[in-house]
Amino acid sequence: MQFLAEGDLVGVSFWIVSVAMIASTVFFLYEGLRVKSEWRLSMLVAGLVTLVAAVHYDYMRDYWVLEQSTPIVYRYIDWLITVPLLMIEFFIILKAVGANVGNGSFLRLLVGTLVMLIFGYLGEAAVMNATIAFWIGMVGWAVIIYEIFAGEASKAAAATESVKSAFGYMRLIVLVGWAIYPIGYVLGYMMGGVDEGSLNMVYNLADFVNKILFGLIIWNLAYNDSSESSH
Amino acid sequence: MQFLAEGDLVGVSFWIVSVAMIASTVFFLYEGLRVKSEWRLSMLVAGLVTLVAAVHYDYMRDYWVLEQSTPIVYRYIDWLITVPLLMIEFFIILKAVGANVGNGSFLRLLVGTLVMLIFGYLGEAAVMNATIAFWIGMVGWAVIIYEIFAGEASKAAAATESVKSAFGYMRLIVLVGWAIYPIGYVLGYMMGGVDEGSLNMVYNLADFVNKILFGLIIWNLAYNDSSESSH
Amino acid sequence: MQFLAEGDLVGVSFWIVSVAMIASTVFFLYEGLRVKSEWRLSMLVAGLVTLVAAVHYDYMRDYWVLEQSTPIVYRYIDWLITVPLLMIEFFIILKAVGANVGNGSFLRLLVGTLVMLIFGYLGEAAVMNATIAFWIGMVGWAVIIYEIFAGEASKAAAATESVKSAFGYMRLIVLVGWAIYPIGYVLGYMMGGVDEGSLNMVYNLADFVNKILFGLIIWNLAYNDSSESSH
Amino acid sequence: MQFLAEGDLVGVSFWIVSVAMIASTVFFLYEGLRVKSEWRLSMLVAGLVTLVAAVHYDYMRDYWVLEQSTPIVYRYIDWLITVPLLMIEFFIILKAVGANVGNGSFLRLLVGTLVMLIFGYLGEAAVMNATIAFWIGMVGWAVIIYEIFAGEASKAAAATESVKSAFGYMRLIVLVGWAIYPIGYVLGYMMGGVDEGSLNMVYNLADFVNKILFGLIIWNLAYNDSSESSH
Amino acid sequence: MQFLAEGDLVGVSFWIVSVAMIASTVFFLYEGLRVKSEWRLSMLVAGLVTLVAAVHYDYMRDYWVLEQSTPIVYRYIDWLITVPLLMIEFFIILKAVGANVGNGSFLRLLVGTLVMLIFGYLGEAAVMNATIAFWIGMVGWAVIIYEIFAGEASKAAAATESVKSAFGYMRLIVLVGWAIYPIGYVLGYMMGGVDEGSLNMVYNLADFVNKILFGLIIWNLAYNDSSESSH
Repeated sequence: MQFLAEGDLVGVSFWIVSVAMIASTVFFLYEGLRVKSEWRLSMLVAGLVTLVAAVHYDYMRDYWVLEQSTPIVYRYIDWLITVPLLMIEFFIILKAVGANVGNGSFLRLLVGTLVMLIFGYLGEAAVMNATIAFWIGMVGWAVIIYEIFAGEASKAAAATESVKSAFGYMRLIVLVGWAIYPIGYVLGYMMGGVDEGSLNMVYNLADFVNKILFGLIIWNLAYNDSSESSH
Repeated sequence: MQFLAEGDLVGVSFWIVSVAMIASTVFFLYEGLRVKSEWRLSMLVAGLVTLVAAVHYDYMRDYWVLEQSTPIVYRYIDWLITVPLLMIEFFIILKAVGANVGNGSFLRLLVGTLVMLIFGYLGEAAVMNATIAFWIGMVGWAVIIYEIFAGEASKAAAATESVKSAFGYMRLIVLVGWAIYPIGYVLGYMMGGVDEGSLNMVYNLADFVNKILFGLIIWNLAYNDSSESSH
Repeated sequence: MQFLAEGDLVGVSFWIVSVAMIASTVFFLYEGLRVKSEWRLSMLVAGLVTLVAAVHYDYMRDYWVLEQSTPIVYRYIDWLITVPLLMIEFFIILKAVGANVGNGSFLRLLVGTLVMLIFGYLGEAAVMNATIAFWIGMVGWAVIIYEIFAGEASKAAAATESVKSAFGYMRLIVLVGWAIYPIGYVLGYMMGGVDEGSLNMVYNLADFVNKILFGLIIWNLAYNDSSESSH
Repeated sequence: MQFLAEGDLVGVSFWIVSVAMIASTVFFLYEGLRVKSEWRLSMLVAGLVTLVAAVHYDYMRDYWVLEQSTPIVYRYIDWLITVPLLMIEFFIILKAVGANVGNGSFLRLLVGTLVMLIFGYLGEAAVMNATIAFWIGMVGWAVIIYEIFAGEASKAAAATESVKSAFGYMRLIVLVGWAIYPIGYVLGYMMGGVDEGSLNMVYNLADFVNKILFGLIIWNLAYNDSSESSH
Repeated sequence: MQFLAEGDLVGVSFWIVSVAMIASTVFFLYEGLRVKSEWRLSMLVAGLVTLVAAVHYDYMRDYWVLEQSTPIVYRYIDWLITVPLLMIEFFIILKAVGANVGNGSFLRLLVGTLVMLIFGYLGEAAVMNATIAFWIGMVGWAVIIYEIFAGEASKAAAATESVKSAFGYMRLIVLVGWAIYPIGYVLGYMMGGVDEGSLNMVYNLADFVNKILFGLIIWNLAYNDSSESSH
């Protein structure tokens, strides 16, 4: 058995996110049992995202402790499952608050997400040229950003004031939080300017924000909505 | 401890399906607690199918990572438990929507399923001549296809419009999804044209479709039916 | 890590029963939450029987894979816990359907069960002479059979038609299913006519019937009774 | 991996108690969800006692199988957590049935329990002289016995007839069941008359009685009380 | 496998706290299902604190048993997650009892907590000079103490009598219980006067008080409040 070394700050960040994912899973599933019925599905999906991440962080943490290098393959497997789930989550919430969004919008978001991820992986795993893969992946990301800031989905969420503000936060997370992935990629693989440790700390932070914080915003929305209705 | 190699795409597909089975199990069991009481059993069976598959994929994934060869015996154990469960699921749903199906129909489906599986295993494990085993197994598959497209079960499901369409999807999955197994078998054992990696990726995809997607269709049917009735 | 060999059919039967026990446990405990309150305890006990068996089958399966010989001691530990539980289950059901059974009957069944098991173990583990142990054990089994076919318990269950038929099935399982244990014993230890593999396959089948099928009959009874009352 | 040997009867008793603790935990927590609200806490505490014991028996069983000697330290850790919990349980039940007991009585019981346990450990671990430790421990035990047979707690439970009889059983368990610990201690450490195997079998039996049987008596009380009130 | 040595009292204290954390988690989550809806979130957070601690104590215990030295890094990871959670818990309760507290107060408490922890770690891990790190950490602690004894939060909780008394207990725990951490630090790193064993026993005790006892006080408040309202 190999323990985490005292000064291994990257390992510490893996640990914190790993345990936080477990606790978040329990939190979301437990709270999902009591929110108003239209929010239940959102809470469940938030809990599945952190559950899947918890499984992968368990492996990634051990990988880092033992190998002291980037667990690329586990990261991308995790993202391939959780990022589309987050996109679906986005839609479930729009529906939960009564927004009117078409399937075309959903499809554009899903395809954008998958393009971003699959080419990211091909680049990082050196199956493709890193620069070409990056720019194709960026197209996917651009589609997502366009859709939620200027496209159909952006208009759909203008319903009530509280929804608008929550939608604003979630949108910000997709803009800023998800931008961390390509930024890490550029620094790590295209400029050679970041060491593996920093790259992983950035990725860990991004997962914390995009999965746990994102889920907490949804929970807050659900919690307030459920409390109001019980008065 | 042996980690998944970066370029091992077959291993990646084992991983994705493995984790997706765990998440699906939580999803189906969690949602089963709130759907209308006549759908609860369907959700539970869907969750048991993915639970059993999750256990086997955990072993198959490790087997692949360590041995880089096909985990035949675990696959067939999994199929021997889950495929009859899926057949039973088919029937529970027909009953849930009020269809009138006889036990003869159920028996034909179950026997067809078991013949298909047991001879498949005997052929793959080289206990029997691969070609003979294949053709006997195909008879089992033909019985299933006949039954749900032209036999008694096919007529039973013509109740309401929404049931008809869901039944259509499920039927399609049994036709297309289950066809993947004999196709993989032919390519892998009778023509020698597929390497073990591709064979396993095809099988993994088939399990994803036949267990998770199949379950999601049922969930969707149950979800809509439960929402309607609460208005 | 040692994987199950492809042609090891006895190992396959250990696996199937092992995983089926896990799935059955989830099934019984999940369904126990919704059946009518008087059936809840029966479902819980059915789930505990399969839970205990799941733990032991996990060890027995590994034992077989590694040692290729009979895991006698784990089998008997399992039986020492589950068989009395099944006897108690028998009584809980008689009570659940409103049958009038005395404690004398319960005691006779419990003592018969324990005599059958303890002497079976002493014989198989060669602590006692196998033949003498067998005949003492048979006395215990005879007491059980007499009690449920001709004694007090047999009369108690004649309440309603549906109970009568379910009681008939359960009685049949105790007659036929439990007979498998002494038959296996005779063949394996007194006549030397069965190899260890066949003996274990027979025992695995017996556990499948006596624990899972037995539980499913109870569930069916509970399910129908609970559905009726909701109309 | 080391398996349990066939003739290791002490190991068998560790196994049985270990698995029984797991099953009991599920039983108490599951039943706690449906008993009348004033019994819920008692069922939960009964489940926590067996949960804690299940964790320790898992280690003790492995310790015995590998070392064939007494796992003293795990036993005492277990007792240090579970025995005070059982004392607290005693009080929760007195409150549940509406008895009027003061905090002084509770304090005397808790202090008696801790004195009995801590000096028992110091004696068994040879930190103190075994005979002196024993007699100090016995003072703690005497305080408990006095309190529940002649002191304040003994009077508090004279409420209704059914409570009185249940209280009588629980009292008997504390008298007889808990006496097993000092008796084992005397035989094992002061007279040298018992081998380690017998000592552990006696301790295992005591834990079975004091944790599982004690819990079942409480459950029976709760079950009857909850059924009555639903008529 | 390495077992806990009989005379290793520090290891014993790790064990006790480790198992107590598991039992507390089950306790808080189970009870959270029945308390009045405004207390549910407090119980959930109390359960998450002990869940996170249970994970870390599992590692710390093994670390101690194998290495016989302080598991600093795991301790601080645990504190970095659980101590802010306890601060949040403090606030949830103030809200649950209807106290009027501003976000400024919350921010001061959170920042104080993080300063205390992060500089504590930097000092213990020898990344910074131990004395300087200590005094900066103490500033954080002073902010907390000021806030809850003389600041805004102290006034907010003066609502009802029962809340006031519970708030008093929780405040005491933050004063006395949290003081144990800097005291241990001073003794262990600045004066060199304490051996690693004693330091860890003190830390273990502090965690027991600050996590489990703190949670039990909250539970007691919730329990009484929920019982009252059901009359």
